[in-house]
Amino acid sequence: MRIILTGSHGFVGATLAAKLRAGGHNVVGIDRTPGADLIGDIGDAALIAKAFAGGCDAVAHLATVPGGAAELDPAAAKRVNLDATMMLAEAAAKAGARFVFASSIAVFGEDMPPAIDDATPAAPRLLYGAHKAMVEQWLETLNRRGDLSSLSLRLPGIVARPPGPSGMKSAFMSEIFHALAAGRPYVLPVSPEATLLLMSADRVASNLQHALTSDAIGTLTLPALRITMAALAAEIATQTGADPGLIGYDPDPHLEAGFGKLPPLRTPAAEALGFGSDASLAALVTKGLGR
Amino acid sequence: MRIILTGSHGFVGATLAAKLRAGGHNVVGIDRTPGADLIGDIGDAALIAKAFAGGCDAVAHLATVPGGAAELDPAAAKRVNLDATMMLAEAAAKAGARFVFASSIAVFGEDMPPAIDDATPAAPRLLYGAHKAMVEQWLETLNRRGDLSSLSLRLPGIVARPPGPSGMKSAFMSEIFHALAAGRPYVLPVSPEATLLLMSADRVASNLQHALTSDAIGTLTLPALRITMAALAAEIATQTGADPGLIGYDPDPHLEAGFGKLPPLRTPAAEALGFGSDASLAALVTKGLGR
Repeated sequence: MRIILTGSHGFVGATLAAKLRAGGHNVVGIDRTPGADLIGDIGDAALIAKAFAGGCDAVAHLATVPGGAAELDPAAAKRVNLDATMMLAEAAAKAGARFVFASSIAVFGEDMPPAIDDATPAAPRLLYGAHKAMVEQWLETLNRRGDLSSLSLRLPGIVARPPGPSGMKSAFMSEIFHALAAGRPYVLPVSPEATLLLMSADRVASNLQHALTSDAIGTLTLPALRITMAALAAEIATQTGADPGLIGYDPDPHLEAGFGKLPPLRTPAAEALGFGSDASLAALVTKGLGR
Repeated sequence: MRIILTGSHGFVGATLAAKLRAGGHNVVGIDRTPGADLIGDIGDAALIAKAFAGGCDAVAHLATVPGGAAELDPAAAKRVNLDATMMLAEAAAKAGARFVFASSIAVFGEDMPPAIDDATPAAPRLLYGAHKAMVEQWLETLNRRGDLSSLSLRLPGIVARPPGPSGMKSAFMSEIFHALAAGRPYVLPVSPEATLLLMSADRVASNLQHALTSDAIGTLTLPALRITMAALAAEIATQTGADPGLIGYDPDPHLEAGFGKLPPLRTPAAEALGFGSDASLAALVTKGLGR
């Protein structure tokens, strides 16, 4: 298949690109980063036309202005997360291409119910989460009309992203991996009791790959492991041989509310269609450490 | 209050403007139609800035590219229904103004459940309905963040709109009033058994006025009368003295599916907050005939 992949040089995008190429697919990566097959902004109609000119069987749309960055520049976030995404969906519809959209559990916001399941309505608080929920609604409408075959996958926290600024409010979930692997102390901005929903980059890339060839349509919350911050830190310390005393906690109420209060997750719809989480905390940490 | 009213020369807008002015409010009407206080497109940032320059206590946002017109020009519909609406909400948030948004039962689409209630999820099929649902999501996010005090009201079919092209797929619901009042034959594009959800312009203007001064936030489906096409036609014939033989039926499957299959509606949330439907079919027809 000829697959257009936006955000191809992002963390998840690069993992997915490698997996798709290993599977024999022709991947056309779009990213603002030098080295991408097509370098530029996904809001650039000429660039998108160029990407589709060679034909397209499927689109994996990962490019986004993430949570923290979106709060700092709402106009840029709308332009990429909403306008460019709708334009890309239109191009995919015209090409008859499958469309897979990386949505996020950010659609569930902060004041969460005691459990999240396939019937839990979106109630975002971040602009980023609102954009994701609005695109889900748009894509489901295009599905309903028969204009497009699209699937939105709501991703949990993905670990471990490369070190450095990502525009992600959830960066601490990855920084703890890098710090302990390097034997550095790290103060977490959430409490030890914070409950996270996590998946490794390798596992999410497998799920996205499955979505590209599946004919499932609609919106699915991906399965994820629900892990306390203390359990995650302990497992990383064990696997890296780091001193658990390197880990400190200084909870930030906003980050605790946004990322540390995630309730139990039930995802029968995604599981029935073959989507899955990492097998265990140990497996997730091993993948997260790139081992 | 100084109230900015978009779509002030539309059918509902003009009724609301008259009601608000009669109540002593200062109404700044925006419409593309000559005669409006501010003439132009709501996507024009300079026009919106001009409207807010004199201060603003509340916005009633009625301007829209309606269902049929949106299908013919999706780009224009997105520009008005989504982009301009989000810009207007941002301006209202900056001004600390109350924001009332005219949404639509079009958010429920076509394949409806056996009944619609306050928990029924949006599942639009028209681009217009998708835009409305996306804006509801955006406004609810702004409410949740404390950035705005907004209420989206989902309007049913409003009768009787003035004769002539409206871009509305639901125009037939109003044309039957004009035809029988003039003693002309009229062939309805739905069956006699078609079930409609209707409200008079006078009643919807009262509901919008109530929303402007209420502090209720979120999204509400307005109560409406559920009426068969045959019962509506018979009541119009009775009140106009027209020969019921003037009425014919030639159902269009698309219009029957979109407007003639409306299930029973339960709207306890709106009713508890003081929103209401017309008192009876007879009252609705009397108002619809402008009597």
